[in-house]
Amino acid sequence: MFEVIGERINTSRKLVQAAVAERDADYIIDDVKKQQDAGANYIDVNAGARIGHEEEDMKWLLNTIQPVATVPLTLDSPDPAILEMAFQMVEKIPMINSISLEKDRFDTMMPFLEGKECKIIALCMDDTGMPNSSDDIVGRGKTLVEELNKIGIPTDCIYIDPLVQPISTDSNKGQMVLDAVRDMKAAFPRVHITGGLSNISYGLPQRKIINRTFVTLMMNAGMDSAIIDPLDSKIMATIRTADMLLGKDNFCMEYLKGVRAGVIES
Amino acid sequence: MFEVIGERINTSRKLVQAAVAERDADYIIDDVKKQQDAGANYIDVNAGARIGHEEEDMKWLLNTIQPVATVPLTLDSPDPAILEMAFQMVEKIPMINSISLEKDRFDTMMPFLEGKECKIIALCMDDTGMPNSSDDIVGRGKTLVEELNKIGIPTDCIYIDPLVQPISTDSNKGQMVLDAVRDMKAAFPRVHITGGLSNISYGLPQRKIINRTFVTLMMNAGMDSAIIDPLDSKIMATIRTADMLLGKDNFCMEYLKGVRAGVIES
Repeated sequence: MFEVIGERINTSRKLVQAAVAERDADYIIDDVKKQQDAGANYIDVNAGARIGHEEEDMKWLLNTIQPVATVPLTLDSPDPAILEMAFQMVEKIPMINSISLEKDRFDTMMPFLEGKECKIIALCMDDTGMPNSSDDIVGRGKTLVEELNKIGIPTDCIYIDPLVQPISTDSNKGQMVLDAVRDMKAAFPRVHITGGLSNISYGLPQRKIINRTFVTLMMNAGMDSAIIDPLDSKIMATIRTADMLLGKDNFCMEYLKGVRAGVIES
Repeated sequence: MFEVIGERINTSRKLVQAAVAERDADYIIDDVKKQQDAGANYIDVNAGARIGHEEEDMKWLLNTIQPVATVPLTLDSPDPAILEMAFQMVEKIPMINSISLEKDRFDTMMPFLEGKECKIIALCMDDTGMPNSSDDIVGRGKTLVEELNKIGIPTDCIYIDPLVQPISTDSNKGQMVLDAVRDMKAAFPRVHITGGLSNISYGLPQRKIINRTFVTLMMNAGMDSAIIDPLDSKIMATIRTADMLLGKDNFCMEYLKGVRAGVIES
């Protein structure tokens, strides 16, 4: 089944930032529970937005979330020191968000990751910027898999993010990433493909239908995870339905459960 | 762009049957105009449901529809004599619905098709019944293309219908047909893939979300046409959005037009 990384606990969101600033644990706990109830498989925790407070905010968030977390956490920071602290605090094997091929990020993250048991999101970004062809995405993805394998991270713990780009800037940006996902999965059947989706609709109206139609196309290409808002019931219903149609829902059990719970509607 | 074959003018639909029985031309004309306005690329015309009246009903329908048809018609009958009459009546190059590998159907349709300029829907059905694997679908599709090529029908005039089967009977029925479409398009890049979609959701609740999620998956696999109700605005919005995401809508023009017309909504 498709894995949903719930993106809501991020201090760049106004209400979350306010809750963190006020140490409003109830707000955070309620949000985490809602994401889990909606089907999140990971809860992303990002405390980066209050400059100078990331360490204490991350610590408070993890202490607040951990007792109610029934799923693993995604530790989301560019700072290996923060990630090291967070890694020591969590009980379930976490996902780390993220490494990339940008030299600074790569050089600081590799020593952090070596010898650790974790999942890792690996962005197809390097110092030249965003990838500009499907071969470029696949080439970067392969480098990331090979480098991470070398330090003992198995392929099925790697979540490649091909970096979705806006279709409004170039009509081929959708097909480019779809081709890359298909080729990447052909080269590494055990690798996961994840990422944000909403960049695809940047600059266009009625973005949600674009995002959920795009996740369906991406799932057919081989994407098996995404960083989304699990409280967007329409995209969640689309994902559950696509899982069923792709043969990942025996006897349509999860689909029927979703219909009975009122979260899948025509 | 994806081609929509509007399925509404079919005497198996109660209101259409009543309109045909009463020779209510206004009803039929109105329905055809609505399908065209909604984006139908072909109007399917099926007069088969009133036993013993097919010839006169088809004739009346074509005489009624022709003056307002801005798109070609899909002549839908198993009877070559009816199709021959209909073929002589239409002004634009029609699509014929359909031939299959069932011996009786094949043997009567091949002489009808030989030498004619038309599009043809070719069903992956033979006398053993429905196909039961993706290789089986592809094998039947290839036979149909090769046989039709032999009598002078070019590959890009052939619309293969892989015969979508209910996912409720077997969780693999979705992936089976997706694989078949991808393999068929790889073998014959110029062939079209069409068909009804709603069989996929047979026996399940909330069928429309299944149908429109499925058409998105099928479009990523290579389906470029379907026989649907163009007045189902949600599936039409999904198709327009998927076309854009697949790079078939330069500058997102058609998508933006749909949003402005109020037919694409999140």
